[in-house]
Amino acid sequence: MKPAQRSPSFVSRTIFVAIFLALSAGTAIAQTADPLPSWKPGAARQSIVDFVRATTDPASPQFVPVEERIATFDQDGTLWAEQPLPTQGIYCLDRVPALVAAKPELKDVEPFKTVLSGDRAAIAKLPMKDLETLLMATLTGMTADQFQVEVKNWLATAKDTRWKRPYTELTYQPMQELLQYLRDKGYKTYIVTGGGQDFVRVYAEKTYGIPPEQIVGTMGGTSLSYDDSGKPVINKDPKLLLNDNHAGKVEGIYLMIGRRPRAAFGNTPGDQQMLEYTKAGDGARLAMLVLHDDVVREYAYGPAQHLPEVAMGAFPQDYYDMAIKNGWVVISMKNDWKRVFAFEK
Amino acid sequence: MKPAQRSPSFVSRTIFVAIFLALSAGTAIAQTADPLPSWKPGAARQSIVDFVRATTDPASPQFVPVEERIATFDQDGTLWAEQPLPTQGIYCLDRVPALVAAKPELKDVEPFKTVLSGDRAAIAKLPMKDLETLLMATLTGMTADQFQVEVKNWLATAKDTRWKRPYTELTYQPMQELLQYLRDKGYKTYIVTGGGQDFVRVYAEKTYGIPPEQIVGTMGGTSLSYDDSGKPVINKDPKLLLNDNHAGKVEGIYLMIGRRPRAAFGNTPGDQQMLEYTKAGDGARLAMLVLHDDVVREYAYGPAQHLPEVAMGAFPQDYYDMAIKNGWVVISMKNDWKRVFAFEK
Repeated sequence: MKPAQRSPSFVSRTIFVAIFLALSAGTAIAQTADPLPSWKPGAARQSIVDFVRATTDPASPQFVPVEERIATFDQDGTLWAEQPLPTQGIYCLDRVPALVAAKPELKDVEPFKTVLSGDRAAIAKLPMKDLETLLMATLTGMTADQFQVEVKNWLATAKDTRWKRPYTELTYQPMQELLQYLRDKGYKTYIVTGGGQDFVRVYAEKTYGIPPEQIVGTMGGTSLSYDDSGKPVINKDPKLLLNDNHAGKVEGIYLMIGRRPRAAFGNTPGDQQMLEYTKAGDGARLAMLVLHDDVVREYAYGPAQHLPEVAMGAFPQDYYDMAIKNGWVVISMKNDWKRVFAFEK
Repeated sequence: MKPAQRSPSFVSRTIFVAIFLALSAGTAIAQTADPLPSWKPGAARQSIVDFVRATTDPASPQFVPVEERIATFDQDGTLWAEQPLPTQGIYCLDRVPALVAAKPELKDVEPFKTVLSGDRAAIAKLPMKDLETLLMATLTGMTADQFQVEVKNWLATAKDTRWKRPYTELTYQPMQELLQYLRDKGYKTYIVTGGGQDFVRVYAEKTYGIPPEQIVGTMGGTSLSYDDSGKPVINKDPKLLLNDNHAGKVEGIYLMIGRRPRAAFGNTPGDQQMLEYTKAGDGARLAMLVLHDDVVREYAYGPAQHLPEVAMGAFPQDYYDMAIKNGWVVISMKNDWKRVFAFEK
């Protein structure tokens, strides 16, 4: 047979095929670029990749419609460092001098007196009631706008004592990649933190790419008043609406999201109920816990018999056993992460 | 000059141009199709179009980044009919027989006795304390999952007395178009309702295209327990967390969204603070009120001197005056809407 003459319509078909192939190749390149470059190969990484494939591949029997793709992340110790104190705790301590300058009568009153002394050992021993007084005094009693400015100003200058860097640089690079990977796959990422909801909102969009409406945290009561020009003003009142920790994390998710997460990530017993609630749903579910076992690159405060304990955010042995029993995947910072922080070489 | 020979590369350029023009034409057609076909030309419609152009045209001095495009909508009387009673009120009344069947001791106790009598006049006269008892008894004391099933089942069969249609068909077609128009322009649409947050969540995604996490409403407390199989269960407790009406709407927006809306829509004095808060922000802001002045196609319950008053959702004269003074745009159902409901001819 004679070859067919190359008519314009044949050429146009050829060009369409070429365009199609070029586009497909582009897609293939984008898909094969490693979305989790800071994760070492292993069970933790594989469980993430398997979960994402099972819930986002339209051919998968466990496919999840995009509107139901909800992933919730604890913050302190899960997305960023929480030692020697969760960042908001340091903020509250740092606010005391300004507070006492505005209200000098607090100077000789506990817990302000002890905080002003700078005696870390004495501060660590303050009873719970005094800590609550400290939180209420530094996190309420101002307008929402004033609070936002105070937090922003503090974050712009405060540095942690170990790395001498702004706190917002102490996020875990592998978790940042995980957030982005899930979002690229249609997941809506939420922070569900025991920290103050409006504290985290100040920096979460810039720090994690998570907007204010996707921050679930400990919630305080507010009230409305009018300023001298007649404009409405939101005041932060010394009233607890919801303590977003333990069972409160599930209550917070019900309140703020209204859907059961498909994936949840935490690092302490404060995350237990969120992980249980996530795994109790049908279909593919992912529950993961960050184990702090890297004393060189970060801190080690896991199960007592394996690792040295430090004061905060403990991950006791029975919690580790519960994780294994419940099919929660434990992430070893030491063994599963190529690097912890973006600023590492 | 001789015409250039039609080489394959010339043909490929031609095809690219043809594809480009075809795509551009498609875009142009999509952009010029009327996004608000149920709105008559006039000040209300124009204020919407002007606001959207000012905040979404990149060349506009009042351009708003997409992440800050938040629009909040009251529900009852703003997105759907609220006469003779807001739909959730009818749900609570309709639940009483099932409640009394489960707890026969309530049969002779107020307000259940009066509700069971079916005497509408007596029901309308029940004191506020009795109404609160009724709400708590029908909206709390079950698991969140049970509640969702009860509401879903009721919505599937209940019909309003005037149009004999499911309540979810009583949404205002012009407002549905407005929701879609704003979403097409990058706005995140929220319901901010005095109704129960988890009641509205049951149907809002299907009815309005608004997902559960974008419903802000009156919030009740919950608690966590475990069922016989060890799975966590969310219980709806008889505890009010936030009454999402009047100032509570601003508090609810702060809690659930954490950003000031760019546009807000309501219909009663319960929306006043939300509209004030919205307009108090900088740049272009839109505040609108639906005026029920269409006794033929829906109901008329606006300012007393102009329109017959009915029991609920009043729009008193001083509120009308406040709207005009504050630059809030009043939407006349009678004059601004070509049709009210989708089911109209």
